[in-house]
Amino acid sequence: MTPRPAPDWRTTDWLNTPEPLTLERLRGKVILLHAFQMLCPGCVARGIPQAQRVAEVFAGAPLVVVGLHTVFEHHEAMKLESLRAFLHEYRVRFPVGVDAPGEGGDPIPRTMRAYAMQGTPTTVLIDAQGRLRRQVFGMHDDLQLGAELQTLLLEAQTGPASGAQRPAPQKVPAACDDSGCR
Amino acid sequence: MTPRPAPDWRTTDWLNTPEPLTLERLRGKVILLHAFQMLCPGCVARGIPQAQRVAEVFAGAPLVVVGLHTVFEHHEAMKLESLRAFLHEYRVRFPVGVDAPGEGGDPIPRTMRAYAMQGTPTTVLIDAQGRLRRQVFGMHDDLQLGAELQTLLLEAQTGPASGAQRPAPQKVPAACDDSGCR
Amino acid sequence: MTPRPAPDWRTTDWLNTPEPLTLERLRGKVILLHAFQMLCPGCVARGIPQAQRVAEVFAGAPLVVVGLHTVFEHHEAMKLESLRAFLHEYRVRFPVGVDAPGEGGDPIPRTMRAYAMQGTPTTVLIDAQGRLRRQVFGMHDDLQLGAELQTLLLEAQTGPASGAQRPAPQKVPAACDDSGCR
Amino acid sequence: MTPRPAPDWRTTDWLNTPEPLTLERLRGKVILLHAFQMLCPGCVARGIPQAQRVAEVFAGAPLVVVGLHTVFEHHEAMKLESLRAFLHEYRVRFPVGVDAPGEGGDPIPRTMRAYAMQGTPTTVLIDAQGRLRRQVFGMHDDLQLGAELQTLLLEAQTGPASGAQRPAPQKVPAACDDSGCR
Repeated sequence: MTPRPAPDWRTTDWLNTPEPLTLERLRGKVILLHAFQMLCPGCVARGIPQAQRVAEVFAGAPLVVVGLHTVFEHHEAMKLESLRAFLHEYRVRFPVGVDAPGEGGDPIPRTMRAYAMQGTPTTVLIDAQGRLRRQVFGMHDDLQLGAELQTLLLEAQTGPASGAQRPAPQKVPAACDDSGCR
Repeated sequence: MTPRPAPDWRTTDWLNTPEPLTLERLRGKVILLHAFQMLCPGCVARGIPQAQRVAEVFAGAPLVVVGLHTVFEHHEAMKLESLRAFLHEYRVRFPVGVDAPGEGGDPIPRTMRAYAMQGTPTTVLIDAQGRLRRQVFGMHDDLQLGAELQTLLLEAQTGPASGAQRPAPQKVPAACDDSGCR
Repeated sequence: MTPRPAPDWRTTDWLNTPEPLTLERLRGKVILLHAFQMLCPGCVARGIPQAQRVAEVFAGAPLVVVGLHTVFEHHEAMKLESLRAFLHEYRVRFPVGVDAPGEGGDPIPRTMRAYAMQGTPTTVLIDAQGRLRRQVFGMHDDLQLGAELQTLLLEAQTGPASGAQRPAPQKVPAACDDSGCR
Repeated sequence: MTPRPAPDWRTTDWLNTPEPLTLERLRGKVILLHAFQMLCPGCVARGIPQAQRVAEVFAGAPLVVVGLHTVFEHHEAMKLESLRAFLHEYRVRFPVGVDAPGEGGDPIPRTMRAYAMQGTPTTVLIDAQGRLRRQVFGMHDDLQLGAELQTLLLEAQTGPASGAQRPAPQKVPAACDDSGCR
């Protein structure tokens, strides 16, 4: 099955970034899109911390972590001012977009609808060509997420079309680490 | 720096496997070698559980998790019979070799000495060509470990010499998962 | 030092209770007052879960767990509608009062000010006579909290004035439990 | 039901204490007896750490934490030398007795049999008069354990026979703590 292009994001506001982010502007980078609600216990306890660790562990790699606030219930309780305070208190540093309200009374916001997300947290992986490659509802295993991100990073390194060179090992130094093995 | 071949293992016993494992017999597979002591609190609480999760998450991939019991203190306390009961009680399923005693009164066992390990737990990654690619003393981050293992798995897939094809994505399905996004 | 009466609560709203709670109406019961903010990470991760476990473990005892929403920053972010959704999503069942806004522009709400709380979470223990007996800022150890609550419960049992009888053991069955020891 | 005297301990060795401990010598103190096996995962992960925290939180109170190594399986794997190294590596400071082997081929050691313990970990509470007051197989809740210990401590304070005075509050300072409430 051929990967399809990831749907564009429909947002009303952005926090933690001087200007709105779009798929087009991020082309060439692997994207971890973390969809959450600020009052979703699983997001707060596990999803958001995982997204933050991805940003730290893969700092330096051509990878961007982007949050998406996909409120589909308790809309009055999670407005922009509350989200702003939430990000401040939880020290969330990555950019966060606010998903645009659903059309025609739809409680599901527009980007969430376009990706057919089942709920929050949802983790979406988009490759450097802007294609949707992975979407997981609920918690995602760290070991597996690390492997999946690395696959997309190595693909990006070889280039989508050519693929003529073998990917240089990334994050695996040529020999041993500081711990020795002379 | 060119990776060097991983030193051979010097063991006296093996548990959880019908016959001893050697680097040569595992050629073609990525190896996670987990060096531990059964009375090392960090190994018990975090290292061994991580190795077990690697075995589960990468089941199906050409990857082998191997334990190595590298006793360098309290030798009388961690003999074969104790290790056997430990593996049973902690439900450790992967093969475990017992590192051979050090030579000439050396308290450090032989394989541990050959790899110049600093202590336990130590995680060693060996590529499909039998080369030592990574060695970490202490706890290793799950996200990063997942990425490193995936790099070695993708390398193994393209073949060491040719590298003429782009690695097929592994663990990242072509499109979306069960969670939706038709 | 003689314990002083606990200051009265000044609140604007109550959730999870058909009518407002007051110290006077709770006389005769031991009170655990848990002061929190819905966007305080330490409250969400540890303080509120501890208060909930107290309510469960001491169900049946003359003890009441009361929450107090003491917002002293990001006031716009934690209004009543947000708090209501928060309690719903985190399945908080105990009654929660909303601390009244500070006077004369004071960002510290009135009850928080009266108790001279240093921040959130703060755990306050009030005895059956309505006296302030313990106030802890930050996390409180479960073992110690259990011991403190039991002291106040046993005091309540013997009565404040008389004290003529030895307290009947509570929560410690006369002999052994289901596990045996016939 | 009247509490019965706790059965005497039958041990072969003691560690972390200059001389063997007996119920008689500990009369007047509340005892937390923690029965464990060094290769029991639940004991290592939760039971022993809980016993250690009790010793810390109640330091200063007339309370003694005593370990009992009740090996009922894998006897060859958990001999004295292994136990000694285990206590060293896990920094267990409280005294630990080694339960005497069962009679007539009984795999259950003698003290474990006398208390009719169902397995490990088992937590036993003995009051200052040497009476068995509580026995829990498996994990025991911190809040409840704290409450139970406090009951026995307060009883000890008033004296078993008289009970004429009301117990002085223990662990609950007369007024507020360092955090304020002037």
